[in-house]
Amino acid sequence: MVGKGLLIVVSGPSGAGKGTICRELLKNNPQIKISTSATTRKPRAGEKDGVNYYFITEERFQHMMSEHEFLEYAVVYDNYYGTPKQYVIDNLHNGNDILLEIDIVGALQIKKKFKDAVFVFILPPTLKELKNRIVSRGTESISDIEKRYDAAISEIKQIMKYDYAIINDSISGAVRDIEAIVRAEKCRVVRNYEEILSRF
Amino acid sequence: MVGKGLLIVVSGPSGAGKGTICRELLKNNPQIKISTSATTRKPRAGEKDGVNYYFITEERFQHMMSEHEFLEYAVVYDNYYGTPKQYVIDNLHNGNDILLEIDIVGALQIKKKFKDAVFVFILPPTLKELKNRIVSRGTESISDIEKRYDAAISEIKQIMKYDYAIINDSISGAVRDIEAIVRAEKCRVVRNYEEILSRF
Repeated sequence: MVGKGLLIVVSGPSGAGKGTICRELLKNNPQIKISTSATTRKPRAGEKDGVNYYFITEERFQHMMSEHEFLEYAVVYDNYYGTPKQYVIDNLHNGNDILLEIDIVGALQIKKKFKDAVFVFILPPTLKELKNRIVSRGTESISDIEKRYDAAISEIKQIMKYDYAIINDSISGAVRDIEAIVRAEKCRVVRNYEEILSRF
Repeated sequence: MVGKGLLIVVSGPSGAGKGTICRELLKNNPQIKISTSATTRKPRAGEKDGVNYYFITEERFQHMMSEHEFLEYAVVYDNYYGTPKQYVIDNLHNGNDILLEIDIVGALQIKKKFKDAVFVFILPPTLKELKNRIVSRGTESISDIEKRYDAAISEIKQIMKYDYAIINDSISGAVRDIEAIVRAEKCRVVRNYEEILSRF
């Protein structure tokens, strides 16, 4: 059905595989646009400015905050992360869907502002696998790894704040899940009520 | 994710194409079982007892009512229709999904008893197409056709009681919609909360 764009918020602990799942989703669904976050953290190996994140200084971030240019922002592991507002608003208005890959603090801010947004939480298959994936990333100190692990567990405990949970047993299954969620949400009566009554 | 079976209730006016969509859904998804309704109406050409409906007498229907053997029942165009209870309960318990193709009166009875059921309403693409499809069925008198048309419009006005609306512009699109709805609903956090917390 036709309607304005869908705002899809995806969260999940480090190591859940949400980056890979989101990339696959975008590849198969050109009407879904990803909102690139701004962050003050340093790029990891292979990360590109404007692709993975806008890598900006803390000074610049705070200036944008003071100008209300973020839809949401959060401090995660001593770094700032934020979603620039204009790109999201413009795309939703034009009927494109927007994917936000953000943490739970940001997601809860979005939930207050966008009642129609869809909240998806991606989980690793097991606790053991979560540990393995955080460790094998290999870019962080032991203390960073411990912080990520503790944060992951505390995020999972808050999963009831999300609409959907995807257990990432396999990438292809998880991608099919999120595609189904997007398609199903577009069929929700609450999103199409006026359109339907105008037809009949 | 694993869980108990999903109860999927499908309604829609005569001529919306829900029969065809449900058959396609069942063909592709063997874990979904259809509950065959009992009815006192006469079989149409090609309809088979035990497949399309259990065609039973009014006396037998009333006996089953008095024995509380129906999950829901309704009178539609002077005929009784009802969903035998045991088959549905057993399949849900065993983890199969159950598809009920019933009218709105029956659907509202199910809604009271099964808080977790999913309610899908199937619509023809346009008002004109609705008329064409009811007329071209060709098995009914003019007065039956008018009754069906009026009933269809009054059902559509109550669509807010359903969770999802599928506009049947094309059978393949509508089947993909309902498959997505089933897959997405299985990812709902409320259906998986305990399972998730037990894993992490």
